[in-house]
Amino acid sequence: MAELVKEGDTYTHAFSFSQEDVVKFAEVTGDKNPVHLDADFAAKTPFKQRIMHGFLGGSIFSKVFGTLFPGEGTIYMRQEMKFMRPMYPDAKYEAVFTVTSVNAEKHRANVTTEVKEVESGKVTITGEATVLNTNRL
Amino acid sequence: MAELVKEGDTYTHAFSFSQEDVVKFAEVTGDKNPVHLDADFAAKTPFKQRIMHGFLGGSIFSKVFGTLFPGEGTIYMRQEMKFMRPMYPDAKYEAVFTVTSVNAEKHRANVTTEVKEVESGKVTITGEATVLNTNRL
Repeated sequence: MAELVKEGDTYTHAFSFSQEDVVKFAEVTGDKNPVHLDADFAAKTPFKQRIMHGFLGGSIFSKVFGTLFPGEGTIYMRQEMKFMRPMYPDAKYEAVFTVTSVNAEKHRANVTTEVKEVESGKVTITGEATVLNTNRL
Repeated sequence: MAELVKEGDTYTHAFSFSQEDVVKFAEVTGDKNPVHLDADFAAKTPFKQRIMHGFLGGSIFSKVFGTLFPGEGTIYMRQEMKFMRPMYPDAKYEAVFTVTSVNAEKHRANVTTEVKEVESGKVTITGEATVLNTNRL
């Protein structure tokens, strides 16, 4: 990672998932919790409507690391996530990354990972990741 | 959670994902890192073959919490994951859960979450989760 990112680097990526994405995510992972799929069930929960799987929201970190920042050759070592607020289909979000430290010898970097609602700026996921640059192994 | 699980409870769930699942996961999340999709690319990495997305492997925690243990009404507050070894399509895994503490007042539980290779017993993901029982809110 040392070669691709440095301490203090930041990256922001806007995204949104549809209810169709939520259904596909439920099918592939097997997580058919009705709070994600069944509008009548969800209406009776504290959320009042269907919410996205936390893991679908958090998968944006995996997408960005693996394909954009730093991209190809990046492998996950660790991801911590705190789910601070529900996330909803079709709402606009941004994922914000900040490199907090780099271990040049081990080709690893620690990165804070956050998701925010674009409109309100409210944070929906906080966390930290450690990623490895396999291009240099 | 206090009402559904208690300290010391354990749960084990066997699972496997196919390369077709990996492709679907890449499509819905947008994580098209070629180490998961392109056999020729993967052959040149330290893994020598295509590996599963860490987030797909870890999604078993979300599935189990949301549908099996404790199931319906469970919501994620937190998930930490350390990716200890690569995971491969069609290999047999088991997810192992142990309830480490319960906060009856807040309806929350802390649970260690682990994935192991069934054959070797080697651990591929370690971590801990905090889950909330919304049925009692």
